[in-house]
Amino acid sequence: MIVKVPATSANLGPGFDTLGLSLSLYNRFEVSPSIVQSIRIDGEGSDIPKLLKDNNFIKIFKDVYRELGGETRDFTFYLKNEIPVSRGLGSSSAVVIGAIISAYEMLKVPYTRDLILSKAIKYEKHPDNITPAVNGGFNIAMIKNSKVFYIRHKIPNDIKAVVVIPNKAISTRYSRKTLPKQYSLHDAVFNISRSSMLTGVFLSKRWNLLKIAAEDRIHQDKRMALFPALFAVRKEALKRGALMSVLSGSGSTFLNICYRDDSSKLASSLSKKFGEFRVLELEFDNTGFNIE
Amino acid sequence: MIVKVPATSANLGPGFDTLGLSLSLYNRFEVSPSIVQSIRIDGEGSDIPKLLKDNNFIKIFKDVYRELGGETRDFTFYLKNEIPVSRGLGSSSAVVIGAIISAYEMLKVPYTRDLILSKAIKYEKHPDNITPAVNGGFNIAMIKNSKVFYIRHKIPNDIKAVVVIPNKAISTRYSRKTLPKQYSLHDAVFNISRSSMLTGVFLSKRWNLLKIAAEDRIHQDKRMALFPALFAVRKEALKRGALMSVLSGSGSTFLNICYRDDSSKLASSLSKKFGEFRVLELEFDNTGFNIE
Repeated sequence: MIVKVPATSANLGPGFDTLGLSLSLYNRFEVSPSIVQSIRIDGEGSDIPKLLKDNNFIKIFKDVYRELGGETRDFTFYLKNEIPVSRGLGSSSAVVIGAIISAYEMLKVPYTRDLILSKAIKYEKHPDNITPAVNGGFNIAMIKNSKVFYIRHKIPNDIKAVVVIPNKAISTRYSRKTLPKQYSLHDAVFNISRSSMLTGVFLSKRWNLLKIAAEDRIHQDKRMALFPALFAVRKEALKRGALMSVLSGSGSTFLNICYRDDSSKLASSLSKKFGEFRVLELEFDNTGFNIE
Repeated sequence: MIVKVPATSANLGPGFDTLGLSLSLYNRFEVSPSIVQSIRIDGEGSDIPKLLKDNNFIKIFKDVYRELGGETRDFTFYLKNEIPVSRGLGSSSAVVIGAIISAYEMLKVPYTRDLILSKAIKYEKHPDNITPAVNGGFNIAMIKNSKVFYIRHKIPNDIKAVVVIPNKAISTRYSRKTLPKQYSLHDAVFNISRSSMLTGVFLSKRWNLLKIAAEDRIHQDKRMALFPALFAVRKEALKRGALMSVLSGSGSTFLNICYRDDSSKLASSLSKKFGEFRVLELEFDNTGFNIE
């Protein structure tokens, strides 16, 4: 049994800790009972030795497996990763969700998407990452009394994503520390209005408003200052047909959204200009996690 | 020719300066050419002598009339008001919009809803009041480069409003002064998430999420402290079937939203408990301004 979990872009523009969506880039997790424990990683992260020694997937899987009453035994873990590690594309959320579901599946304990979400929030505190990874689509998420509440909306196929993935990470923790502790009423209202508008745009397909709805005064520019090339990425993307160009998660990846017909041209412009970064044209994922 | 403009509730819960909706309570404005200038006010505001001497409708009407090239002459102004004055139900916006449209109609100059909106924002700086007054329905509004951008959505008729109108006003200017200058990231994100969620609720009819989506940490409680009875109104309303209970505009009116079937019971509970306040069951308006 293979659990497949999509990549996500959270902190969507003004929707800090609130808005996220799901992308067609997947991590696949395969767990099998075995005589001795072993782990194999293919694809993204396979060149990071730390991941083999101290793997979060194994920790969470075992944690949940024990909690569900599974008896002590060994497994082989096979992780086949398409989601770049520490680039703001939700690889940690994918690991959390993949591990939880794998434990449920292994023990044949029934579950719902909402149950997985309620388990996942204990390991990953940002609802805007785990919610789209579970549900697919565009998600508005919030936490109240440690519970995740969300509205999920299907992303229509007239738009597409072009992601620009830099060759180095921005640490989420470090990135969060760069944020001011206090915001003016004006800046708070700026993001309240844009985040509400961005929600409205996705729910009513008013793509012509996407650019102004994606403006932000809470987090992006401060984080991008850690990686100034990103300002050039945004400028170029908006010039070359992106309807919206925002930091994905806490970076360093940039998420650009454009009309389907414009995606190849946008991707090739960005590839040409930013040869040191990976540029991928991606569909949005509207399925969320899936068992293969 | 009579211009009819609906009441509005702006600053909707977490959607400070952003979310507003339109209610079936109307001001009607009738302007006719005449030998001498006169003004008559019926209904709300007719007992406020200041409104006869120094009337904002007349000022704005003349302003726009001149701007459109109308020649100097006198008029009679007949204002038939259902919208209580200075109670957070958008009476000022109704006056602004009524006056602008009356000038266009008087001179037979063609106009669109968006043109009226762009004129109105010069007189009334809060887009969340004027936008629903122009469009009807639920509106997400923002300003960029002095221009109003919005998404308007029809409010379905499975919900209804019960407004509680206190017998005294809270001054908008004074009320705005009670707001802190700075907000923590946590409080800003709280409102960003709720306002996005509230938008999602109205656009996808997920009324079960209305209560938690309507929470706010930017303005309501601070303003309500100027009028402590409002805390009791909110508590009672939520106990008696309101799905959401929020300050309307900057108060003093409270807007409660409930399922259609619950509105009579909710209204009678609130009337009984708060005998000194007016309680009205209202439909939502989905038309905006209208020429009768």
